[in-house]
Amino acid sequence: MIRVALDAMGGDSAPGPEVAGAVMALRELPPDFELTLVGRTADVEAELARHPGVDRSRLRVVDAADVISMTDKPIAAVRKKPNSSLVVGLNLHRTGEVDAIISAGNTGATLAGSTILLGLHDGVDRAAVASPFPIPDGSVLVVDAGANVDCTSKELVNFARLGTIYMRDLVGVAEPKVGLLNVGEEDEKGGAIVRETHQLLKQQPRIRYIGNIEGRDIVVPHPTHGQVDVVVCDGLVGNAVLKFYESMGALVTRLLTKESPDLLGAKELAPLMRFLDYSEYGGAPLLGVRGVSIIAHGASTASAIKNAIRRAVVSVARGLSDHTAAEMAQHELPGSM
Amino acid sequence: MIRVALDAMGGDSAPGPEVAGAVMALRELPPDFELTLVGRTADVEAELARHPGVDRSRLRVVDAADVISMTDKPIAAVRKKPNSSLVVGLNLHRTGEVDAIISAGNTGATLAGSTILLGLHDGVDRAAVASPFPIPDGSVLVVDAGANVDCTSKELVNFARLGTIYMRDLVGVAEPKVGLLNVGEEDEKGGAIVRETHQLLKQQPRIRYIGNIEGRDIVVPHPTHGQVDVVVCDGLVGNAVLKFYESMGALVTRLLTKESPDLLGAKELAPLMRFLDYSEYGGAPLLGVRGVSIIAHGASTASAIKNAIRRAVVSVARGLSDHTAAEMAQHELPGSM
Repeated sequence: MIRVALDAMGGDSAPGPEVAGAVMALRELPPDFELTLVGRTADVEAELARHPGVDRSRLRVVDAADVISMTDKPIAAVRKKPNSSLVVGLNLHRTGEVDAIISAGNTGATLAGSTILLGLHDGVDRAAVASPFPIPDGSVLVVDAGANVDCTSKELVNFARLGTIYMRDLVGVAEPKVGLLNVGEEDEKGGAIVRETHQLLKQQPRIRYIGNIEGRDIVVPHPTHGQVDVVVCDGLVGNAVLKFYESMGALVTRLLTKESPDLLGAKELAPLMRFLDYSEYGGAPLLGVRGVSIIAHGASTASAIKNAIRRAVVSVARGLSDHTAAEMAQHELPGSM
Repeated sequence: MIRVALDAMGGDSAPGPEVAGAVMALRELPPDFELTLVGRTADVEAELARHPGVDRSRLRVVDAADVISMTDKPIAAVRKKPNSSLVVGLNLHRTGEVDAIISAGNTGATLAGSTILLGLHDGVDRAAVASPFPIPDGSVLVVDAGANVDCTSKELVNFARLGTIYMRDLVGVAEPKVGLLNVGEEDEKGGAIVRETHQLLKQQPRIRYIGNIEGRDIVVPHPTHGQVDVVVCDGLVGNAVLKFYESMGALVTRLLTKESPDLLGAKELAPLMRFLDYSEYGGAPLLGVRGVSIIAHGASTASAIKNAIRRAVVSVARGLSDHTAAEMAQHELPGSM
């Protein structure tokens, strides 16, 4: 039985979508997991009461009196709010009571808390937020999507390694193709750190590095190499592109409202709008930490929470943490500094 | 009479779209300009022959035997190919024979050539590529869109100043709103240079700085401040987002081909697909150089070239270069280093 803890107080509308998502997961996903909802018991139970007939045999509630808000400073919040739902949930994971933790709350606090309380695998200097960008045939993993800015070349190379493990072991891509996001494809493109990373990536025997790519090659197949599986970039760049992508649904809605209002409600358009609705997607894995930590979007719907739970269960079932530990410990970086 | 030079050999399919765009501009735009096509005379004349009835009184051809290719190294190409269409065109501008230059060729070479041959205004350390991102009501200017990576905080502040001048004097926005692209809105977000830039921008008396913005606030109105007019960022970030945006048309086409193929040809969808077709847009102004230099997309269609010509004419008519010179010379940066 895989045991998943869910921060019930994390998201923008918590605990409603968290509880509804938990209920949905218990009903719809294969029954190989049990859930721990962490939060203010009264609030969580009040939400649970709105979903009669829930199977409580695979669901428990662990009380946490406090909540870390979206505006709390990450490290300070983790240290000063030991009774927050996030920290209580992380400690359940740290002590082995659960196998995975999910939070739709303060991303920085989830990152800091996971790093401090779960720890990092040997060979990993910084955990990375890996964001699966939807594409028509699946997803492409962008690492880092906002956790780390001012990255060194060694850190960027580690993002490539971590992303490769995830796409291979979790998503099932035999040899994931890795691209380095840059302003052009030639060796001499980009600033000092990106150029150095490009040279280091070429020397990694266990990474299928296709070279520098441009912004147009993230969600559309590269003309020579086809669709990439892992995009490596500094968190400033990855976060900008991620949030820009998230705004496309609103942009399309605004444009069609102005130009083709009749089309907005048409059923032929629904697949596109659903595809562009980021609130339906199931969270970003935090790579490099000991264990399984998933960061869900603050605006996550119930079905996004359900999808995040599925992602956590699969990550545990396929041994993501053990595989990452083995891979990162085993191989020194040639040419690293 | 405003005199515009057009590098006829620049784009991916040159000189076809360049010549067709020049012809279109002469026919469709107000007749307050004359054009100089720079390139191999035989090739340009052969293309012109396909457009009978062109008004040659406002069109001349200046011969340039050589061409700078997309793969040439920018500075070396400018130095070693004095007879290239780009360098000949830039020299026409430098010597005062024309008032503006447009090229759809090698962006790095156009940037380097403009910087070396036209020079920069006092107070400007690096020219910036300002990319107008289309939005349903007009455009938002992203500076820098790929010319400069590893920017200093002073350079980023200058991008804000240059972008403000352009949006005010060229586009007619009375007090352009400027946002700094970051991973979050709080003061402490981002790396060292971005944090420093944020503090410097707050002290600029002549910039309407609304603060840090995120990727979702570029083409969709900010929830508090409304639509921004100028987005300031390092060229690595701006280029990634620009090219990602350019790939949205292909992404939507791929998704609909799979999910709603009937919709693809529907006339209701045409406004969206036209909006997402970057090859129709009219080029990015190079800000900070003495004169008017416009970088058009390598894939520019004839109508994109026409639009770039209009942008050049308006830039000259409204005194962009003089206004920039006055603004950048007049005001020292408080707190700059």
